[in-house]
Amino acid sequence: MHVMSEEEWKGFLVAEPHTGKLATTRKDGRPHVAPIWYDLDLDGSIIFTTGAETLKGKALRRDPRACLCVDDERPPFSFVIIEGAVDLSEDLDDLLLWATRIGGRYMGAGSAEAFGRRNAVPGELLVRLRPGHVVAQAAIAG
Amino acid sequence: MHVMSEEEWKGFLVAEPHTGKLATTRKDGRPHVAPIWYDLDLDGSIIFTTGAETLKGKALRRDPRACLCVDDERPPFSFVIIEGAVDLSEDLDDLLLWATRIGGRYMGAGSAEAFGRRNAVPGELLVRLRPGHVVAQAAIAG
Repeated sequence: MHVMSEEEWKGFLVAEPHTGKLATTRKDGRPHVAPIWYDLDLDGSIIFTTGAETLKGKALRRDPRACLCVDDERPPFSFVIIEGAVDLSEDLDDLLLWATRIGGRYMGAGSAEAFGRRNAVPGELLVRLRPGHVVAQAAIAG
Repeated sequence: MHVMSEEEWKGFLVAEPHTGKLATTRKDGRPHVAPIWYDLDLDGSIIFTTGAETLKGKALRRDPRACLCVDDERPPFSFVIIEGAVDLSEDLDDLLLWATRIGGRYMGAGSAEAFGRRNAVPGELLVRLRPGHVVAQAAIAG
């Protein structure tokens, strides 16, 4: 096993379009986790969009504390777990910029604009997860 | 997008050795998520092992409510989210049986026994997540 440096885990997060698995806490304390598409900002923040009325959106508006896991499911297995707090924005210009980038990252350049337009609308939230505590391990088995 | 039937999501969970991302709630309410290796029992329960003193182990001993996400990160993207409660066991025979199966699933038959022996020891927990609410969607984009 190899503990990733900050440079390594940032590289891991963007090298391939892995999905992130975002954990939030429900109002009654139950945990929830769902896949998200994300991109990384220059300062190391994880950026994604979600609907304000989705389970994720409601949980993050109630409590900004979140945890994200991104892993490589193939041997020798690697993962990054990021805990931190989120900032939420409804700025449509920022939403368009990031949703377009994120759409391109997962669906290819040809689908980026359409994805951006669809997600830069009122009712969508731009979420910025600022890394607090990070656990990042490469080659954990095999 | 296609909503998976129970037969379909059970098949998805075992068709390829995806890792599961297990969400738990920390004592202070913060969410946590970490990758796990799992297998599926005949009754649809998700089975995995974890150390009793790990973050996951301590969280599940305090509160049995958990949520697991397994997804296909490639287009057209599919995911299964399982919410439920866990039963914990320290039975070493059951631990050996399941840890061996799980090791074989992720590392190949040649590594199954060694993985089983390493994880069927005092201090390890066998966790059985009984599916309560399941959201399972195939081909969500593209």
